Amino acid sequence: MQLSHAMSLLDAARSEAARLGVTVSISIMDAAAWPVAFIRMDGCPLGAIEVSQKKARTAVLFQMDSAVFATIAQPGGAAYSLENTNGGLTSFGGGVVLKGADGSVLGAIGVSGASTEDDIAIARAATQPAA
Amino acid sequence: MQLSHAMSLLDAARSEAARLGVTVSISIMDAAAWPVAFIRMDGCPLGAIEVSQKKARTAVLFQMDSAVFATIAQPGGAAYSLENTNGGLTSFGGGVVLKGADGSVLGAIGVSGASTEDDIAIARAATQPAA
Amino acid sequence: MQLSHAMSLLDAARSEAARLGVTVSISIMDAAAWPVAFIRMDGCPLGAIEVSQKKARTAVLFQMDSAVFATIAQPGGAAYSLENTNGGLTSFGGGVVLKGADGSVLGAIGVSGASTEDDIAIARAATQPAA
Amino acid sequence: MQLSHAMSLLDAARSEAARLGVTVSISIMDAAAWPVAFIRMDGCPLGAIEVSQKKARTAVLFQMDSAVFATIAQPGGAAYSLENTNGGLTSFGGGVVLKGADGSVLGAIGVSGASTEDDIAIARAATQPAA
Repeated sequence: MQLSHAMSLLDAARSEAARLGVTVSISIMDAAAWPVAFIRMDGCPLGAIEVSQKKARTAVLFQMDSAVFATIAQPGGAAYSLENTNGGLTSFGGGVVLKGADGSVLGAIGVSGASTEDDIAIARAATQPAA
Repeated sequence: MQLSHAMSLLDAARSEAARLGVTVSISIMDAAAWPVAFIRMDGCPLGAIEVSQKKARTAVLFQMDSAVFATIAQPGGAAYSLENTNGGLTSFGGGVVLKGADGSVLGAIGVSGASTEDDIAIARAATQPAA
Repeated sequence: MQLSHAMSLLDAARSEAARLGVTVSISIMDAAAWPVAFIRMDGCPLGAIEVSQKKARTAVLFQMDSAVFATIAQPGGAAYSLENTNGGLTSFGGGVVLKGADGSVLGAIGVSGASTEDDIAIARAATQPAA
Repeated sequence: MQLSHAMSLLDAARSEAARLGVTVSISIMDAAAWPVAFIRMDGCPLGAIEVSQKKARTAVLFQMDSAVFATIAQPGGAAYSLENTNGGLTSFGGGVVLKGADGSVLGAIGVSGASTEDDIAIARAATQPAA
């Protein structure tokens, strides 16, 4: 993941957040879960900073969106306790995997600070631009 | 647990993973829960590294397979919160105890990266070789 | 510290890094030591990510540049062990305090990945624009 | 770093350790500091397990051998306190960077358990095979 790519993802996510009238933190990580770029929009709750990072980390480490991860990694789920590995992961939506044209994982985006629905919508707007 | 034993377990597990067409991380620990050997197969999700370690650690520390541990260590179980001790343990299958001919615990193997069923099958193929 | 301010600091730092022919990580924190924005330039060593964060954190928490902090927070210094507080701080240059026109602390910038001299030069280029 | 490469590095290091009559722990990490393979030779002190991991991590994260890192990251050094970043790094020899033919970093090997001189010799025997 090059910085120029990460910056364009940040811009797209930030535009969608503005359109929805919310303020969020947005983390971009590479395919090995190392941070590439991050922004916190004015007014975003401070707790959302780390949440955005953990959402991106969750998506990269298990190659699935955090909303999907949530279906298995919780009490009663098939992999309860998985959410407590790797420094603590995030069992709700807002972390979305970034894939290349060939399906390989390029990294992930994590969005936090609005409702989970809006967080997901913002992450998807960045990763799946409309035609 | 000698290194030569651990390496033969790794080889057996890796062969079974290849036969199943999956890529996993495999951790071997001794009877005191210290690592003896580890491999990550090409393409295995990064999050599986620590999960394989925690599965082996869970099996050694409580002298039971992590799939059995899961039946007591979860919300509603007889020992809920046990999974949060010892640095965080794993309440799903893939960690298998290694025992000697006399029943004493020699260590454990932890496998992660495929479905829980396949992870368990790989760990058992290594520890319970067919006649 | 508003995001728009942080982004202009990032841009200025990144331009100076490019002019010097180096690649660095750059962290901007607010007056309460919470992250506002971050970038890692392509090719920057991974270890520099956290170092850039700790440099900014050091500068904010003690309201002094990390190069000044280094003169007291080391073996033999007047406040040896101070560097081990607050989660670990950074006793060398590259963290620079951001002040408002009235002298109040607005936040800090932390730069890491090049030589300490270049890291400092990049941080200063962002915070003390030439006339 | 593919597993087959990591296994050949482990074999070479283990052979050199045997030749020197010492027992060590050996960690191989990829270019993003994620573990690929690990062994602990019979008789190696338990404390060496994590040391081997931190040596490899140090070498990857700063793209320099841990013996070189040691010259700057210690009291009186140009970057004192750097050794306390990234979860704690290792300011003595035995972590060696692995580079490809084009000079790019492929990962690192970390060796611990013998004298620092022997640890370094073992790491180099694996990474710089004789002609």
